[in-house]
Amino acid sequence: MNKPYIKVAISGAAGQIGYSLLFRIASGQLFGPNCPPVHLSLLEAPAALPALDGVEMELADCAFSHVHSISKNSNSEAAFGDADVIFLVGAKPRGPGMERKDLLAANAEIFSVQGKAINAAAGKGVNILVVGNPANTNCLIAQQNAPDIRPEAFSAMTRLDHNRSLAQLAQKTGTHTTDIKKVIIWGNHSATQYPDIHHATIGGKAATDLVDDKWYKEEMIPAIQQRGATVIKARGASSAASAASAALDHVHDWAAGNEDYLSMGVVSKGEYGIEAGLVYSYPMQCTGAGEASVITDLACNEFSMQKMKESEAELRIERDAIRHLLP
Amino acid sequence: MNKPYIKVAISGAAGQIGYSLLFRIASGQLFGPNCPPVHLSLLEAPAALPALDGVEMELADCAFSHVHSISKNSNSEAAFGDADVIFLVGAKPRGPGMERKDLLAANAEIFSVQGKAINAAAGKGVNILVVGNPANTNCLIAQQNAPDIRPEAFSAMTRLDHNRSLAQLAQKTGTHTTDIKKVIIWGNHSATQYPDIHHATIGGKAATDLVDDKWYKEEMIPAIQQRGATVIKARGASSAASAASAALDHVHDWAAGNEDYLSMGVVSKGEYGIEAGLVYSYPMQCTGAGEASVITDLACNEFSMQKMKESEAELRIERDAIRHLLP
Repeated sequence: MNKPYIKVAISGAAGQIGYSLLFRIASGQLFGPNCPPVHLSLLEAPAALPALDGVEMELADCAFSHVHSISKNSNSEAAFGDADVIFLVGAKPRGPGMERKDLLAANAEIFSVQGKAINAAAGKGVNILVVGNPANTNCLIAQQNAPDIRPEAFSAMTRLDHNRSLAQLAQKTGTHTTDIKKVIIWGNHSATQYPDIHHATIGGKAATDLVDDKWYKEEMIPAIQQRGATVIKARGASSAASAASAALDHVHDWAAGNEDYLSMGVVSKGEYGIEAGLVYSYPMQCTGAGEASVITDLACNEFSMQKMKESEAELRIERDAIRHLLP
Repeated sequence: MNKPYIKVAISGAAGQIGYSLLFRIASGQLFGPNCPPVHLSLLEAPAALPALDGVEMELADCAFSHVHSISKNSNSEAAFGDADVIFLVGAKPRGPGMERKDLLAANAEIFSVQGKAINAAAGKGVNILVVGNPANTNCLIAQQNAPDIRPEAFSAMTRLDHNRSLAQLAQKTGTHTTDIKKVIIWGNHSATQYPDIHHATIGGKAATDLVDDKWYKEEMIPAIQQRGATVIKARGASSAASAASAALDHVHDWAAGNEDYLSMGVVSKGEYGIEAGLVYSYPMQCTGAGEASVITDLACNEFSMQKMKESEAELRIERDAIRHLLP
């Protein structure tokens, strides 16, 4: 890397998650205080460029020491040129009367363009996080359209579900989230996701010994699966700041490493019998410098295997709905 | 301090600035990584408590290592009890057809209640930042209602104007904001504020030698005074994230110290001929641990003195409009 900054590109930069994410990146939290400053490359649809001007003004008005420079684009290839990290946050939300199939197709359009742009323009060591929903399948589309980029560069966000699981367990057991290790989110970032506590520890003890099975299966799992809707109902707006925080955690730990298990959607190589090629959330070990590998040696009980398969089945259906749009 | 955390209270916690501010405090940026964790005490009007539930869920869902605990209240005294730092962010915004006098009176109501609550309940070493507008006069009202708290504990925010001035100068001179020192905002956080570059340096050189006087007086000063409106026009929403960032900077530097001049609204002791008792923004030296003193030995030219007096005159009018509500 010869440039005097780390180039971080963010799509959907003027949206709600973008607004929460940008200022945390700009304040130096993505790579820590001892890293080079960041160049922020902001991507938005043409209609949102005036709003993006306002966001850029506010970023400038923070006088962040950690920001080298800022650029704005409505063209993906320009935005992603020589990028080191790309957050794909922008996605088409589900409109009234829109079928899931139509939603998948509308996003397939966006993410195939962005995948091609990444393939053509991004730095060869780029790491990509897809936040925009349906995140796993959007990630699959981008990845399939970027044949020259290593598949391991692509990831989809399940860290928010992971963090939410820590919060639920901490609340239930009267502990702090930092006491809890080895939680896993398997599968799709959707209502079929499977938050798995069978390997988790709380203060060094097995989580399954500290919370009862009925609470875990009948309250915690549905609470995580439906948490987004619960937040919207209370706030009257979607969970932007917590999604942004999870995105920051995901890329931070990917770059810096973390001894705990982390949940990330990655291109499956068939681990745990999941169909190779799908973007599936697995327990990951991040050893730093953008290296992450699936933890492959966990024993999964029948309940877990069934849940893992259910989420895989949904991902197959999503993939099949947009398969004609894949290269 | 015997408690195992720093108690940080925030009013208007479910509002837009609150939403930007809370997650940055919670992520550890207020006091840095080596300080005790924070207890977040969130204050909102009763009508906003459901939305505040959603904000609390999202804070929990971030699994922040730096958050000790969270509490919510609609009662000021409960929210401020034993607080170490208080951000008074919530204020009544100007409604359609509302006169400035009515706005001042409506906020005088809120801030007199909060001042009394601070007097009754806050920790004796508390530091308070008023962000809610009209910030200087709101701060005056709170301070006058808290006779048992040292006046130096109260401050009003002009750091956003200060940071905006750094941004304008950096853009104009092709430098980085970190190259610029000793900018001053004098007076009221309003359109009469006076951004003063006569003492400022850019890369060690006098700012007045690097930018021309016409640009400074005819473009930069009005740009700073009107920046909030410019951001609203572009974004379609007010400058929440940059205001939150400035609030964080203000309290961070107040606690940790900063060698540069900083701009803070504080209770005047008559420095520079300004009426004692008004809350007026001065150049401040923050030496750490919540200690801040007005830099009193600057020579101000005629242009500056006139601008400083104009802003003082506005603050007198504001004070007189609500004087009957002062204790």
